[in-house]
Amino acid sequence: MAKELKDLTKRSEDYSKWYHELVVKADLAEQSAVRGCMVIKPYGYAIWEKMQATLDRMFKETGVQNAYFPLLIPKSFLCREAEHVEGFAKECAVVTHYRLKNDPEGNGVIVDPDARLEEELIVRPTSETIIWGTYKNWIHSYRDLPVLCNQWANVMRWEMRTRMFLRTAEFLWQEGHCAHATEEESEARTVQMINLYADFAEKYMAMPVIKGVKSANERFAGALNTYTIEAMMQDGKALQSGTSHNLGQNFAKAFDVTFVNKDNKPEYVWANSWGVSTRLMGALIMSHSDDNGLVLPPHLAPIQCVIVPIYKNNEQLAEISRHVEPIVNQLRELGVSVKYDDADNRRPGFKFADYELKGVPVRLAIGARDIENGTIEVMRRDTLEKQVEPIEGIAEFVKGLLEEIQTNIFRKALNHREEMTREVDTYDEFKKEIEKGGFLLCHWDGTPETEEKIKAETKATIRCIPLDGDKTPGFCMVTGKPSKQRVIFARSY
Amino acid sequence: MAKELKDLTKRSEDYSKWYHELVVKADLAEQSAVRGCMVIKPYGYAIWEKMQATLDRMFKETGVQNAYFPLLIPKSFLCREAEHVEGFAKECAVVTHYRLKNDPEGNGVIVDPDARLEEELIVRPTSETIIWGTYKNWIHSYRDLPVLCNQWANVMRWEMRTRMFLRTAEFLWQEGHCAHATEEESEARTVQMINLYADFAEKYMAMPVIKGVKSANERFAGALNTYTIEAMMQDGKALQSGTSHNLGQNFAKAFDVTFVNKDNKPEYVWANSWGVSTRLMGALIMSHSDDNGLVLPPHLAPIQCVIVPIYKNNEQLAEISRHVEPIVNQLRELGVSVKYDDADNRRPGFKFADYELKGVPVRLAIGARDIENGTIEVMRRDTLEKQVEPIEGIAEFVKGLLEEIQTNIFRKALNHREEMTREVDTYDEFKKEIEKGGFLLCHWDGTPETEEKIKAETKATIRCIPLDGDKTPGFCMVTGKPSKQRVIFARSY
Repeated sequence: MAKELKDLTKRSEDYSKWYHELVVKADLAEQSAVRGCMVIKPYGYAIWEKMQATLDRMFKETGVQNAYFPLLIPKSFLCREAEHVEGFAKECAVVTHYRLKNDPEGNGVIVDPDARLEEELIVRPTSETIIWGTYKNWIHSYRDLPVLCNQWANVMRWEMRTRMFLRTAEFLWQEGHCAHATEEESEARTVQMINLYADFAEKYMAMPVIKGVKSANERFAGALNTYTIEAMMQDGKALQSGTSHNLGQNFAKAFDVTFVNKDNKPEYVWANSWGVSTRLMGALIMSHSDDNGLVLPPHLAPIQCVIVPIYKNNEQLAEISRHVEPIVNQLRELGVSVKYDDADNRRPGFKFADYELKGVPVRLAIGARDIENGTIEVMRRDTLEKQVEPIEGIAEFVKGLLEEIQTNIFRKALNHREEMTREVDTYDEFKKEIEKGGFLLCHWDGTPETEEKIKAETKATIRCIPLDGDKTPGFCMVTGKPSKQRVIFARSY
Repeated sequence: MAKELKDLTKRSEDYSKWYHELVVKADLAEQSAVRGCMVIKPYGYAIWEKMQATLDRMFKETGVQNAYFPLLIPKSFLCREAEHVEGFAKECAVVTHYRLKNDPEGNGVIVDPDARLEEELIVRPTSETIIWGTYKNWIHSYRDLPVLCNQWANVMRWEMRTRMFLRTAEFLWQEGHCAHATEEESEARTVQMINLYADFAEKYMAMPVIKGVKSANERFAGALNTYTIEAMMQDGKALQSGTSHNLGQNFAKAFDVTFVNKDNKPEYVWANSWGVSTRLMGALIMSHSDDNGLVLPPHLAPIQCVIVPIYKNNEQLAEISRHVEPIVNQLRELGVSVKYDDADNRRPGFKFADYELKGVPVRLAIGARDIENGTIEVMRRDTLEKQVEPIEGIAEFVKGLLEEIQTNIFRKALNHREEMTREVDTYDEFKKEIEKGGFLLCHWDGTPETEEKIKAETKATIRCIPLDGDKTPGFCMVTGKPSKQRVIFARSY
């Protein structure tokens, strides 16, 4: 393990290679035998479970309930909303048959040609269509509204270029689908959920995000308006981390979902949908980790504190363990997730390197000398600083340190973003600056044509039109036409 | 809702119709637009979430970790283990293409013939093959063992005759897949998990089960040995509720997964897998519910106690609410999930019928007169008995009553099973008795041929060879050949 760690590529050498190696070496995930699909390994999945549990609680606090809708969507459903099918048709996994059989010519097992489906089924790339097909049965009167459903599910988009967690053919996510009686209420829910995602990103992932609206080019297929949270990775590229879509009445019209309002008149239902995915794992890794491995925010770390005994023989180990037991109990009482690693098949040095690689926020090490002195060695993963503390009161100390680490890595990421964000006023300057990475705040004339030109020439896209901050109007850096406010351009994952 | 309840078919009239209506009327699930796939509605999903949370905790207490493996399995993987593919080939959803396109002839959107996969992918019917394909990367030495992984996932088996929760094309489940260094250890884990399932069924679902071993005919495709828990439904039919398979070295051999043992010699890894699914929802419904609707065991009820105010005007409601608030708080402090339903768009009678239909274990009703008297009306769902209790101490009373209900419905189900279980010694008697339903304890000669004959002639199968109970040998009721012990025959879901 120590050897493997030494082999980790440095971020400055090859950021992309560093990321991929780290995902594998830290036991988060690996490529599977299926093109573009990954296996999420237990340590990676444990982080995802903490994200899920937190988000699920936050959703439920706003009145959302979970449900489950079919994996497979009839092709005709997907085609009902024109923009929607246009957006997803090119990356659909299609089920055409429902049986295998032995090849009569002896070539093993083949697809049974007699078991062809009358209508092809699509592995859901997202579930608006099947869900709105269902909501037609659920919604008749204003009394049935709002419907606030979420589902935790796997979805599939046949991406040609994949990268673990960031872009995979199959990924795990949650998708919320709400139905409302009024446009205002639906818009309010759309904004509520992007705010919830921003809170989650900042308070749990320690990842600062900018809330904004997507330009028409980057909008969800079938939405009137897409809200997004955008984070900046350490290499200065943007990562879209969550979206919330105001779908207007598009899906209600496509699936004929109407309700009788308080004035006893039929009206189409107003919709929104919102989601985050295992992509957040990629965002988490790239926001904080370093050349020694993962750096996990304490609020999402499966193990927040590890205790490693340093001993020469079994007697010493027994003595150390006797002193560690109350520390473990005190930490658990304070709600700290703690592991005492007394395994004797790995030496302390290996363990240290392994827990560094895995991003455990706090490591305690304790040996015979420490016990004599009533002290313990504390190492914090974010700064790699070591200090010696009294055993007395160590649990409270660790608890406080975890919060300090959480705050520190957020601040570090925020500083990095601020340093890498600047205003640019001419297109010439833009072309130079975009090569350095980061967020460029520029005036834009609001047209898809200008955005496409910039993208074609610089690979940068509009990440969002920020909701907060400076709203001073100006003139487009490319066309000189009027601009309402600066927008964020960046290259992105 | 009261009207809908009145419409519920009685169990004695048509048990199967009763079941289907109840699933729909109690808002548990409904058929989707996709053949054989259901939508699990929020109330049904909330029960499933409680099952999941409990099982997940129980698994983790035994050292199991969660992970996630791909949805799609290459056809060649499925074919590696001969019995396994034989068992699942006839019910596989097959992905053959990865893109749709606009029909050049103008017939809307079609499957793009140019986007045919080189190798077809199967939507997982179970994940042994893809997981053992992965374990080959994880396991090299005895130090890497055991691997104790579970995944919560959707799977698909293209069943021709489906029934909500009991048999659906897509279903939700967990599948545990363990890898061990020795046969003994793997067998011990296989048994440990069937015992865990039995504990869960009895303590949480209040559903008595019989633990046993499957006959060869009913064994999992690719297993050496399948353990099962079998429950009896109210109509006397059996329902297989969970299975744990000792897979021997079959999958290790098929995927060439070896490890170097302590003697430095290569050896194939020993495997087991175990699972329960949303089928448990069907078992739960059919074990306890009655002609008035669901009866939920308190340990799994999303709402354990509902409080309904009876009032004539807003002043009375305010007065009642003032008295209810501390009751709600006390119940929550005791860990009781409670809902105060003061919605003013439904009358108390409607609410009563609705919560009965939904199986809420305890209902409290409180009116102006009750407040004068310092009393509250308590209704328990299992017996439908009402009683008046003092408000003072009501939270503790409800807490105790919930446990009493849990015990009572278990006992009721156990009594029912015992009444419907009898020993039968001749095949003539068997043919008569099987028409009455229930479990028949009979001697059987141990051959698949005899079992098949019985199945063909009576539709009864061997549910299991019980682990516990009478082990007296005897003679097969059909062939007269020797039998080691009585086995359980029944018709089943």
